Amino acid sequence: MTMPKGPQAFPRDEYLRRLAAVKTEMERREVTSLVITSPAEITYLSGYTAKSAYIPQGLIISLKDEEPTFLTRRMDAPAAVHQTFMDRSRVIGYPEALIADPDKDGFDALIDFLRDNGPGGGKVALENKNLSTKLIERFKARIPETEFADFSDQVNWIRLIKSDLEIAMMREAAAITDAGMLRAKEVIRPGVREADAAAEIIATLVRGVNGKVGTDLRRVFLCATPRSGTAHIIWTEDVFRQGSQINVEMGGVRHGYVSALMRTFSIGKPSDRLRRVHDAEVAGLEAALSAVKPGATCGDVATAFYTTLKKHGVEKESRCGYAIGIDWTEPTASLREDDHTVLQPNMTFHLMLGNWIDEDFGYVISETFRVTESGAETFSKLPREIFEI
Amino acid sequence: MTMPKGPQAFPRDEYLRRLAAVKTEMERREVTSLVITSPAEITYLSGYTAKSAYIPQGLIISLKDEEPTFLTRRMDAPAAVHQTFMDRSRVIGYPEALIADPDKDGFDALIDFLRDNGPGGGKVALENKNLSTKLIERFKARIPETEFADFSDQVNWIRLIKSDLEIAMMREAAAITDAGMLRAKEVIRPGVREADAAAEIIATLVRGVNGKVGTDLRRVFLCATPRSGTAHIIWTEDVFRQGSQINVEMGGVRHGYVSALMRTFSIGKPSDRLRRVHDAEVAGLEAALSAVKPGATCGDVATAFYTTLKKHGVEKESRCGYAIGIDWTEPTASLREDDHTVLQPNMTFHLMLGNWIDEDFGYVISETFRVTESGAETFSKLPREIFEI
Repeated sequence: MTMPKGPQAFPRDEYLRRLAAVKTEMERREVTSLVITSPAEITYLSGYTAKSAYIPQGLIISLKDEEPTFLTRRMDAPAAVHQTFMDRSRVIGYPEALIADPDKDGFDALIDFLRDNGPGGGKVALENKNLSTKLIERFKARIPETEFADFSDQVNWIRLIKSDLEIAMMREAAAITDAGMLRAKEVIRPGVREADAAAEIIATLVRGVNGKVGTDLRRVFLCATPRSGTAHIIWTEDVFRQGSQINVEMGGVRHGYVSALMRTFSIGKPSDRLRRVHDAEVAGLEAALSAVKPGATCGDVATAFYTTLKKHGVEKESRCGYAIGIDWTEPTASLREDDHTVLQPNMTFHLMLGNWIDEDFGYVISETFRVTESGAETFSKLPREIFEI
Repeated sequence: MTMPKGPQAFPRDEYLRRLAAVKTEMERREVTSLVITSPAEITYLSGYTAKSAYIPQGLIISLKDEEPTFLTRRMDAPAAVHQTFMDRSRVIGYPEALIADPDKDGFDALIDFLRDNGPGGGKVALENKNLSTKLIERFKARIPETEFADFSDQVNWIRLIKSDLEIAMMREAAAITDAGMLRAKEVIRPGVREADAAAEIIATLVRGVNGKVGTDLRRVFLCATPRSGTAHIIWTEDVFRQGSQINVEMGGVRHGYVSALMRTFSIGKPSDRLRRVHDAEVAGLEAALSAVKPGATCGDVATAFYTTLKKHGVEKESRCGYAIGIDWTEPTASLREDDHTVLQPNMTFHLMLGNWIDEDFGYVISETFRVTESGAETFSKLPREIFEI
């Protein structure tokens, strides 16, 4: 019996368009075979979202083939047949005996495949950034007389500009995020355990909204007093108290794509200090969004934010955002004053204004937005307020 | 204002004991400074569990200091002060400007620290396995005239044997897992969306049981018909149906430690084929557990399982388990016939008998157990049954 193809998140044409952009870059670099190992890029180029990235696997793109070939362990091959857009013959499961073998692993199967199918006469490209020294050496030793190229981040730069279909997915994800944030507003109460609030919020992110479920779950952060100065504590065994401040960050997911959002909650009246920082940050946020337009740079947006913030007497040390999509943090364009990336329509960013000012005091607000033909579209419908409980 | 220390999951002595074992291994290898970069090992040796591992960070262990030093980005330093057992002076936040700087990153701050504090005259050890070629070269270039050693997996082998305190944590985690699995039994019904069931199960894993919350969340897998032949699909937008089979895998978490469990669910009477596989697998599971005792090897346990399974007319291609603790899959001992690791009291394993037999048919059952003085203790209290709905 064979595994049926599952419903596809994107049409075949969408994947072929993405692959065409990658192949153009391969040609420019005289690369005939490319091995993709980053899970987000594998999702981007094939539709695969199952959670097998803790073992060796790779998507091989060859200039001579329309579809890529995915190599993963035998037990994960049926999920790949089910989820990817490719023909079933393009999914190859390597033997389970390669898992935890002290002498070889799944990459040996991948190297065998590459060698047996012919690298194509040009260079073989790897994403060196994701691979260990030893593994890169193994590729070179086992495919001799072939030149190797480093393709690190090339696919990441290509996926910086989203298609309209990807944008639609991020809007759906944002609706889920909004529902999660509104659920937080309902369940954050004095005496409630942080974990119990997290449970309700997370369940909302998984159930989804408008008949569209959350297809995956990313981290939810509830950094509550006395931990409002922390950025990446998920939740604790502690309870919320009258006077607690809670910095919340979350993102719903649709078919790999996340839309992130941060809001600050206050149980009781916000302190004057919190109010002052909030006003400054909202002014900065609006200034940043006003600076967004095709042709402006990431640096322009960052400068608008930092200048306005400073004018209001507040400073922020960390960058004010980054590209977002399949990865929460895409490793390409950054909203930093020294980032000269030129904005183009359908680039998407998390304008992340979390500001951890003192060891015991921080504040968060953010928007996920896309660059439009003339400005910025934010995906969340929630007000830019301190959510007062 | 300063960040207070949070409640500590383990007493200081427990961390010093773990560090002493690491330092003994360092001495044996003439290493005076060790840089730990794996998130699970950082948790093991410091208590840090915040989710900042997507940026450069490292725990530096020096033979001349009782406590290690943790370097992370500035915004994550307060969480490290709060969570770790070390003195606050042992947490160093590097400047946010190093995030997304094209020319340098947080590892440069770490290298500076290492150099300025003196590597100690002996070798500097890295976990090469986790690091890119370029990064290792950067360490070597920036700390010249120093010999480097590879410490990959050494801490992982040390943490293979758990302390009684770690075992207690895994028992607490297992109670949460059981609650999640029982919740699955309540919510898996014909017509229910997989995502809605997942939401309820996950909420249970976060809320925890017996007054002890789930302190983190790992993946939950619901591989339902027609996807019972897949291993790592989390859930889909599909609904369960009369006659559906659902392979469930989950693990509750307490302060970093996970206890994993798999059970197979059937909506309606299980098929004869499913029943036959289940009987064979349970027989194999019991044979494997009977083979567990100090002095036996991982291979002995695996052989007991595979021999019994075969006797019942079933085969399984993948290994039948692995060490478990802070990582769901610890990269050390494996329940494979060719693994000669000798079992010792308080080693913990996930006896993982998931068996993806055909592209469209799989079956799962598992137990997380510890090696006792004379046999095996399984942590779950749930029956080894097909959970019939």
